[in-house]
Amino acid sequence: MTIPIAIVGGGKIARDQHIPSIAALGDFTLAAAVTTARSPLAEVANFRSIPEMMVAMPQVRAVALCTPPRGRHAQVMQAIQHGLDILNEKPPAATLSEAADFAASAKAAGVVLYQTWHSREAAAVEPAARWLAGKAIRRVVVTWKEDVRVWHPGQEWIWEPGIGIFDPGINAISVITKILPGPLTLERAELRFPENKAAPIAASLAYAGNGFPVTAEFDFDQKGPQTWDIDIDTDGGALKLSMGASKMAVNGKAVNVGEEPEYFHLYRRFAALVKGRQSDADFTPFAHVADAFMLGRRSVIEPFE
Amino acid sequence: MTIPIAIVGGGKIARDQHIPSIAALGDFTLAAAVTTARSPLAEVANFRSIPEMMVAMPQVRAVALCTPPRGRHAQVMQAIQHGLDILNEKPPAATLSEAADFAASAKAAGVVLYQTWHSREAAAVEPAARWLAGKAIRRVVVTWKEDVRVWHPGQEWIWEPGIGIFDPGINAISVITKILPGPLTLERAELRFPENKAAPIAASLAYAGNGFPVTAEFDFDQKGPQTWDIDIDTDGGALKLSMGASKMAVNGKAVNVGEEPEYFHLYRRFAALVKGRQSDADFTPFAHVADAFMLGRRSVIEPFE
Repeated sequence: MTIPIAIVGGGKIARDQHIPSIAALGDFTLAAAVTTARSPLAEVANFRSIPEMMVAMPQVRAVALCTPPRGRHAQVMQAIQHGLDILNEKPPAATLSEAADFAASAKAAGVVLYQTWHSREAAAVEPAARWLAGKAIRRVVVTWKEDVRVWHPGQEWIWEPGIGIFDPGINAISVITKILPGPLTLERAELRFPENKAAPIAASLAYAGNGFPVTAEFDFDQKGPQTWDIDIDTDGGALKLSMGASKMAVNGKAVNVGEEPEYFHLYRRFAALVKGRQSDADFTPFAHVADAFMLGRRSVIEPFE
Repeated sequence: MTIPIAIVGGGKIARDQHIPSIAALGDFTLAAAVTTARSPLAEVANFRSIPEMMVAMPQVRAVALCTPPRGRHAQVMQAIQHGLDILNEKPPAATLSEAADFAASAKAAGVVLYQTWHSREAAAVEPAARWLAGKAIRRVVVTWKEDVRVWHPGQEWIWEPGIGIFDPGINAISVITKILPGPLTLERAELRFPENKAAPIAASLAYAGNGFPVTAEFDFDQKGPQTWDIDIDTDGGALKLSMGASKMAVNGKAVNVGEEPEYFHLYRRFAALVKGRQSDADFTPFAHVADAFMLGRRSVIEPFE
């Protein structure tokens, strides 16, 4: 018995990742979509809203919310009202208060809420956590640099207040908050805003980890090679996660962590949560983003075109 | 049997509110203080740190943390390590992540954590909540305007990133998140930064309440009369809270809500929490402040001197 699921939001991430993952695995069947008139998904019935879909297709049992974060609160609340289990893409919502509210509502209603962090599902994350166990960490350096033109072509929402470089940056934060022991305490943050944008294009962050420093450099204006690296120096050697934690090396030597794509892992986990009636809604990475905005000193740089 | 308590932080709020409230009520005895060399409290032994105090005075059972929010995380963790029950002044910490971490640690250790919001203890808050029950709210207008020179004379910490006008503003937020039904969703925020400061001196916020709009105007550069008002228009009349929710009027007519000072109410509540071994640690107001920084558009205004 597969679970009939609908995708909400017909953008790039739905097409690049969600549809192929649902199709490749056996747990879900793509039953419908909720999209705008200009971005319908092929081969399924498309609706304009969750309530409209549920009138026509009451057999839908779950939704994958893949829209920009503004408006996500209303969608999650509609899904809850229809008793649907929910996979919620990152970023989770426009604000922390929205996320806290819908998490409480999902819990009260007994629907499954899976707040996904796709980078946490990358192949090297669990092996890295196992390798780190029992070692003393000396220093962590995060370098997350990509070209927004490639990954978010023409997307306006990415420049809304609160997002910008933190759309990829929250992926790095989701990994380090998963694999490092103890809390991360933000000590300094610098956010760089293009003169013509309401969101930062780059950020430099410095944390106190649990006995070791953590620095992060995020840049959304990276030409040439793209970099998604986490370097962790320990008393037992140097760990390197690269390609968004899909690759792992120890002291420069590659470690085989398999090649399962992030979103396969992610949909397997959603299926297990739905079957076990368990939610997984950790907003720690989002709180770290809010913290960076709250403490961050801002500078204005040249316009972004 | 009174509870031996120590005050941590010998600044204005400790002297204006905490010491008189502890002295006036019967539940606690001020046993010691943790202060800097330049701000010792009179009539008690002063120490430089919680661990130093606990060596000399192991009979201390509780602490009231009244320091600026930066550094609060370390103090709460030290208090937890010494098994002390904790009253934590607002703002709670430098970041939400710090607050989430120490709240989890307090829970795991079984110490009482009371995250205070002194404006929630104001005399009109509970009567206002009762009066609102069953009425349909049409509109909420918050006006919180005070002169930082009067209330924070010479205080440098108030201009650290993340604070500024939100030091008083969080008081207003703590009241509306207590008395209004349902969640508040931030729709727009504008933060005004003096050219020479890292924190905003004024903010304009617009929320969607649960079926009604909520607007808030915060200003830290108010000359003349100080204003701490919340106006709530309903289908059953107009409610006005003034003087920081210590006064209440319905349709322009004053309602007697008594005159108990906020900090008397607050210390009575802390005593009840300690006796019942219950924590009360709601960080909702702090999340709303982080949200305002995350979504807020910034403008730079004339320098503040």
